[in-house]
Amino acid sequence: MKAACVENGLVLVRELPDPEPGKGQALVRTHSCGLCASDAHFISGGQNVIDLSRKMGGPYAALHYERAFVPGHEFVGEVLDYGPDSRRSVKTGRRVTSVPIMRQGGTHAVVGFSHECPGGCGELMLLDEDFLLEIPEGLPDDHAAMIEPLAVGLEHARRGRPEKGDAALVLGCGAIGLGVIAGLAMMGVGPIVAADFYADRRDLALKAGAHIAIDPRETDPYGPLPDFGGRRVNLIYENVGVPGMLQRIVEAAPFDGRIVMGGYCMEQEALFVFAAQNKRLNIQFAGGEEPQDMDLALRSIADGRLDVTPWLGGRVGLGGVADAIANLSGPGTPVRTVVDPRLL
Amino acid sequence: MKAACVENGLVLVRELPDPEPGKGQALVRTHSCGLCASDAHFISGGQNVIDLSRKMGGPYAALHYERAFVPGHEFVGEVLDYGPDSRRSVKTGRRVTSVPIMRQGGTHAVVGFSHECPGGCGELMLLDEDFLLEIPEGLPDDHAAMIEPLAVGLEHARRGRPEKGDAALVLGCGAIGLGVIAGLAMMGVGPIVAADFYADRRDLALKAGAHIAIDPRETDPYGPLPDFGGRRVNLIYENVGVPGMLQRIVEAAPFDGRIVMGGYCMEQEALFVFAAQNKRLNIQFAGGEEPQDMDLALRSIADGRLDVTPWLGGRVGLGGVADAIANLSGPGTPVRTVVDPRLL
Repeated sequence: MKAACVENGLVLVRELPDPEPGKGQALVRTHSCGLCASDAHFISGGQNVIDLSRKMGGPYAALHYERAFVPGHEFVGEVLDYGPDSRRSVKTGRRVTSVPIMRQGGTHAVVGFSHECPGGCGELMLLDEDFLLEIPEGLPDDHAAMIEPLAVGLEHARRGRPEKGDAALVLGCGAIGLGVIAGLAMMGVGPIVAADFYADRRDLALKAGAHIAIDPRETDPYGPLPDFGGRRVNLIYENVGVPGMLQRIVEAAPFDGRIVMGGYCMEQEALFVFAAQNKRLNIQFAGGEEPQDMDLALRSIADGRLDVTPWLGGRVGLGGVADAIANLSGPGTPVRTVVDPRLL
Repeated sequence: MKAACVENGLVLVRELPDPEPGKGQALVRTHSCGLCASDAHFISGGQNVIDLSRKMGGPYAALHYERAFVPGHEFVGEVLDYGPDSRRSVKTGRRVTSVPIMRQGGTHAVVGFSHECPGGCGELMLLDEDFLLEIPEGLPDDHAAMIEPLAVGLEHARRGRPEKGDAALVLGCGAIGLGVIAGLAMMGVGPIVAADFYADRRDLALKAGAHIAIDPRETDPYGPLPDFGGRRVNLIYENVGVPGMLQRIVEAAPFDGRIVMGGYCMEQEALFVFAAQNKRLNIQFAGGEEPQDMDLALRSIADGRLDVTPWLGGRVGLGGVADAIANLSGPGTPVRTVVDPRLL
């Protein structure tokens, strides 16, 4: 098959052997796959993730930075076949997505961050048949590719255990931040304050359910909220994933504030513990979506509760992946660029 | 009055003006005051605390590293007098302790980290009369000085919100760690695993209620616990307060582990956020004791539930404070050295 690979920090299109489905695995032809900031972060910080995964144990331990792997964990594709002794739970020809997890004995690989389980930037993928989520007919491929990033945001939202009386701040309105907003809105949390540098992202935040959207360079996100009786945010969601965010939030958060760290930062953060102690803060590290989040994301997109049409804006073939990953953020960039590996 | 002062990182005995009690303040003659690792940490890292407190707002913002202040926040003393319009809630001549907090308008100072509110390393102190806690007759001064550090540990213990099924690890068995163990034991948490490099501290940990006490250089504190069905710790209390502890705990903690950061580290910590995300960890930063913790600490010491006699082992006058602060930890050092400022 053809695939865009990450190899030693470079993105290259290569011809690779077709993957062969094992027991309990489905072989899938990719139709669309979103490109995520994690893909870009891995190119610069991936060695840190590999090193620490080897030290701590974890699914990235088997990765070799200098060996090719096929990225892409926000995928949708059509079931072509199954490995031996499979339940064949979804009919061939139907479209599926899945949590990007492949069980391997007692452990698991992350699809799109593994040499054995190519991600959605290749023509073919292997998926764990127990995790397949069938896509309803009529839902376009690129919309279906947004299920996974939305599910990540929904997981982050609930991981903060919002309660009545919480005022939430969502820092960063990329796909994950927008998903957090949608999740908080579904849970009835309010007010939800969205903060992003870019006007187009702030518009999307309001559409996703934020009550207020601000440019944090112009308005202090931690200040009193005039439209909400002067209340201040106390439940802060980090979805930017660049170094320095953690300490900045700790310095700005209120006493007894709760922080959910969603942005997957692969560089080292610096933190003054006493600063967090003086405010008795709590930090919950978000762990990534679970099947329940995927299910809710699928239903929310399919029934129109969340319109992801404005998230989409770029569509490339395999030859466009390198450029797209190099230009994921900045003013005017779409929330998600998707790759269709059937195109070159 | 005479006092041992901290000034520009040095500990010096000085003659200072006697403090004069204002409205709502009691004037107290110090009988005994414990020396805490925070006092030592401030000498090296205090400027970090001051700088960040100025940036974030906080009680240390008014401190000047190069100006003298009187440390000591684990004090007991005798009420000499009150400021104007006071309730005189505790009779003069009776002994008191207090949370080391002095309200000042809408904000507060920390007694022992303030130019206005001298700590227990001086002959005289000012205390907020609403926070006075009377010491029962018969409780020795030095035992009463252990109420505050015990209260800190009790606060940390409850801040971790232990639940049935939690297995706790207490890292560092100084006064705070021992207080955490005592608090967990009172809440019925088990097993409680105590970890400390020194055998004498491990003995005290067992006396305080730990079920197991290990040297972490010899036994992995995160490994299966043979006497408890192979369970592993999942609720981890950090009471060491040296840089590097946070990342080390993050690397060793189990999936869904909860960490309570108690040690007051004034140096910058380095943290890989993704490592904590991969395990979906929660970090609760402990905020220091509240009056309820002081009350429970007093009752626990007074009724013999926790015998702090073996915590005590050093007693110095003002002239001995500098040496004592320089030698707070290490094998064979007592859990607490106390200063009696009536002695030179």
